[in-house]
Amino acid sequence: MRPQLREHARDAIEDFVRHHVEMCGGGGVVIGLSGGLDSATVSKLCCDAIGPDRVLNIYMPSATSSAQDLRDAEELCRSTGAELRIIDICPAVEAFRSILPEMERKDMAGNVMARCRMVVLFHHARLMGRVVMGTSNKSEILTGYFTKFGDGASDFCPLGDLYKTEVRQLASQIGVPRTIIDKAPSAGLWGGQTDEIEMGMTYDELDQALYGIERGLDDEAIAAEASISMEKVLRARAMHSCSVHKRKMPLIPKMGLRTVGLDWRE
Amino acid sequence: MRPQLREHARDAIEDFVRHHVEMCGGGGVVIGLSGGLDSATVSKLCCDAIGPDRVLNIYMPSATSSAQDLRDAEELCRSTGAELRIIDICPAVEAFRSILPEMERKDMAGNVMARCRMVVLFHHARLMGRVVMGTSNKSEILTGYFTKFGDGASDFCPLGDLYKTEVRQLASQIGVPRTIIDKAPSAGLWGGQTDEIEMGMTYDELDQALYGIERGLDDEAIAAEASISMEKVLRARAMHSCSVHKRKMPLIPKMGLRTVGLDWRE
Repeated sequence: MRPQLREHARDAIEDFVRHHVEMCGGGGVVIGLSGGLDSATVSKLCCDAIGPDRVLNIYMPSATSSAQDLRDAEELCRSTGAELRIIDICPAVEAFRSILPEMERKDMAGNVMARCRMVVLFHHARLMGRVVMGTSNKSEILTGYFTKFGDGASDFCPLGDLYKTEVRQLASQIGVPRTIIDKAPSAGLWGGQTDEIEMGMTYDELDQALYGIERGLDDEAIAAEASISMEKVLRARAMHSCSVHKRKMPLIPKMGLRTVGLDWRE
Repeated sequence: MRPQLREHARDAIEDFVRHHVEMCGGGGVVIGLSGGLDSATVSKLCCDAIGPDRVLNIYMPSATSSAQDLRDAEELCRSTGAELRIIDICPAVEAFRSILPEMERKDMAGNVMARCRMVVLFHHARLMGRVVMGTSNKSEILTGYFTKFGDGASDFCPLGDLYKTEVRQLASQIGVPRTIIDKAPSAGLWGGQTDEIEMGMTYDELDQALYGIERGLDDEAIAAEASISMEKVLRARAMHSCSVHKRKMPLIPKMGLRTVGLDWRE
């Protein structure tokens, strides 16, 4: 973890959650709990910040979900005391399969699944007067390793400035169960998928490369500092630059002035 | 229309479409065509900008869609020569109805419908190497009159700096069929719904109020300049200020610095 965050991250995120939940009427939060590290960490931080009564966790299995993931989600919620609901998104995914071409392609189905989960989360948030707490971390955001308007869609994104390796350290610090911290990171979009195999490098390597990119280092300097191959540095840089659009509001042609994001007014 | 836009809007938007489609590989665009004014205008502008072969229109009826809307969509596509596909989202909406509580509430169902349409549009865009052209206008964006991550979700938003009343003028200028221009604006989320009834004022009134808010006028000045009631000015201002979150990326607590939107890096 970047040294300055060690003492600070937990308090900063809990203050952030508390402040914004109050600003939004105090109803509470809805979280898509997958049994993985990021969502477990968000859920635990929210429980610590605003109390478990205001934290609704929704576990949304798909055809490729493992029984272990559910057990991990259940164990977390037993320990925090927050509610866990299980909502099977398969009927919605199957319905899309009946109306969309090429849904057998795993990347296509993965995007549909991520967006179906978004629909379920925002539905509950609206119904209960709550906000959706996203679970993306900084490594995913900077590489675009998420589905636009799917798992990337939320009201607030508490882990958005922590690299995956830092999330793991924070999780350990706040008492997320060890089985969750130690499992291989996976977006769970198809059976056997792991992030590190798909990206062709470990999160330790990726985060080192991104940290170099963040500080404006050139490729050679990053490879030397992080002791990783030039090929991996270039891959991280390519993921970063190809995913700019995922970190922006839809672009608008500004009449007579310049092109800006949707939020140009505020 | 604001005077400086009269000559300029059409060219500015067509240049914007051409430029960004080329930047994204040149594949073309996908548009959710409802038979209403905004989507018809976007479709026509895209056809004029990049040619009808690179414009895919998808009409996605729901239980409340009218036969007239489909006829209008068909007439537009006959005149431009662009492809029109019809995809019935009812199976997906019904599937969500089976897994979500309170879906009988029309506002809840409306959000689910808007998000199902988003899933269909982005699926086709990915499949065909295209981008999604959104159809939100400036009046909708500034009031939050759209579903977050539903009809508000797109890659590009060509009408985002034109008020609804300006879109109507532009549509007339570029030859959108009269029946489309003259119909009552409706989000089509339930039968008989029209925007102006739901918002309690006409778009002429709303746009005058928003134009005053945009220039930083106070409420009295807006009411006087636009000859509308103070109550309507206040309603427009409330819609504007309550919808700030819909015009921003998910908020991130920035470690050690300040809270920023997802796109803080670029």
